[in-house]
Amino acid sequence: MCDACVMESVKQRMLSRRGFFRAAAAGTAGMAVAGLGVAPPALATGHSSVTDLTHELHEEFPTYFGQQQFFREQKFKYAEHKLNLYELRVNEHTGTHVDAPLHFSADGLSVAELPVEKLVVPLCVVDIREKASANPDAQVTPEDIKAWVSANGDIPENACVAMLSGWAAHVGTDKFRSADAEGKLHFSGFHVETAKFLLEETKAAGIAVDTLSLDHGPSPDFATHNAWLPEGRWGLEAAANLDKLPAKGATLVLGAPKHRGGTGGPARVFALV
Amino acid sequence: MCDACVMESVKQRMLSRRGFFRAAAAGTAGMAVAGLGVAPPALATGHSSVTDLTHELHEEFPTYFGQQQFFREQKFKYAEHKLNLYELRVNEHTGTHVDAPLHFSADGLSVAELPVEKLVVPLCVVDIREKASANPDAQVTPEDIKAWVSANGDIPENACVAMLSGWAAHVGTDKFRSADAEGKLHFSGFHVETAKFLLEETKAAGIAVDTLSLDHGPSPDFATHNAWLPEGRWGLEAAANLDKLPAKGATLVLGAPKHRGGTGGPARVFALV
Repeated sequence: MCDACVMESVKQRMLSRRGFFRAAAAGTAGMAVAGLGVAPPALATGHSSVTDLTHELHEEFPTYFGQQQFFREQKFKYAEHKLNLYELRVNEHTGTHVDAPLHFSADGLSVAELPVEKLVVPLCVVDIREKASANPDAQVTPEDIKAWVSANGDIPENACVAMLSGWAAHVGTDKFRSADAEGKLHFSGFHVETAKFLLEETKAAGIAVDTLSLDHGPSPDFATHNAWLPEGRWGLEAAANLDKLPAKGATLVLGAPKHRGGTGGPARVFALV
Repeated sequence: MCDACVMESVKQRMLSRRGFFRAAAAGTAGMAVAGLGVAPPALATGHSSVTDLTHELHEEFPTYFGQQQFFREQKFKYAEHKLNLYELRVNEHTGTHVDAPLHFSADGLSVAELPVEKLVVPLCVVDIREKASANPDAQVTPEDIKAWVSANGDIPENACVAMLSGWAAHVGTDKFRSADAEGKLHFSGFHVETAKFLLEETKAAGIAVDTLSLDHGPSPDFATHNAWLPEGRWGLEAAANLDKLPAKGATLVLGAPKHRGGTGGPARVFALV
């Protein structure tokens, strides 16, 4: 092709790409061509919306220990190699991520061994924003669970019980960790008695938090991790957008990584409503 | 606790954990306790099954270039620290993984920028097992797409069009790469004309293969990658279990990683039927 033709080709390609997403955003249906018409938007069977519960991961994403846990190295660059490719280095417990039973047990299930039936599950959202706003160290108590049940009915089998503390809004600021002068952290989590209560009274598969830990920030001993995970249950930490969901009725899809023997890892998490 | 009590406690905990999963597998419903009864199994709204399209990732997982692309280092060990934790090192294009537009373009969408509406989509499975079995270099042609449409109706908007070559069954053997004496690979992929056909005639969001590349093994130039990805579409490589799904009717949930500026990455992929 001549230079002008190449430029025109690139321009057309870019217009085409933009048009694709613009059309999708506007919900317009294309025209049938050559017998291959464009069907109307067909979302997941029975679902009308998808909510992304995943924060974007990057080098500065806040971590429990305060050290950088995500790194990347570019191995191929488009300008030079006609493709882009990175090698990633990441601590399993970084960003929006899963805790597998093996994280806090000698021989529990790895993240690759979690049964898929426990990864696509009913989601129960327990809203403690009011007390977390007043006291960052507030915890989800058995009474919070009982209040949820009174309002919404029983916790379904295999459910994920999620804490909505409102902390996801602080992910870009120091308030997300709220480290004090002694380095102690301040954010909400599940009280250890709540973990025991859920184990005894329900068949929930997982618990989720919108903070950096299943235990609240000042915990000295990971009591909730130690009570919950060894029982074959999973945890989800640093979930996003729980405030966009109803208290009941959503389906959580936990896109946990599947590396052999893993103790957890960054996950892609959706809620279908 | 005395030693015997500790042992009994551990034993009871293990029985409890096993019982949890055994009960789930058998589909039994627990008894209501203290007003928090166990509701009957409630799967995703409108779905009756979940199929895992993800291979387990490990150090020896086969790669396109033939070099190891997944590594891990244990940072905490339960026996010593009372928790397990690994740091992972992984090439983005390893295992069951996503190709984002940025993988083969200077400025295309990164994996973190893919709209969620294009990650939970109708799945169309194009079965070319017969010709792939006879010729490992066989490709999905426009005629294969037309035959699918004749049998199943139009390709839905935002669909994932998936190639079922049968190659997932070979993931544990050298046949998955089928490298010949000159190092050339042999497995199926999408013909470049099929990529162009899908761009022109449908609003498909992604294509998927059960082999190591969107292009078939002997491709000298990544023609299909170059035709498809820069148009704002995604690819899924090394998908598992496509043979467990119907030709139409499943919903694909692409649990793509969400790291800023990423060109793709290992994904957790489910199909809901």
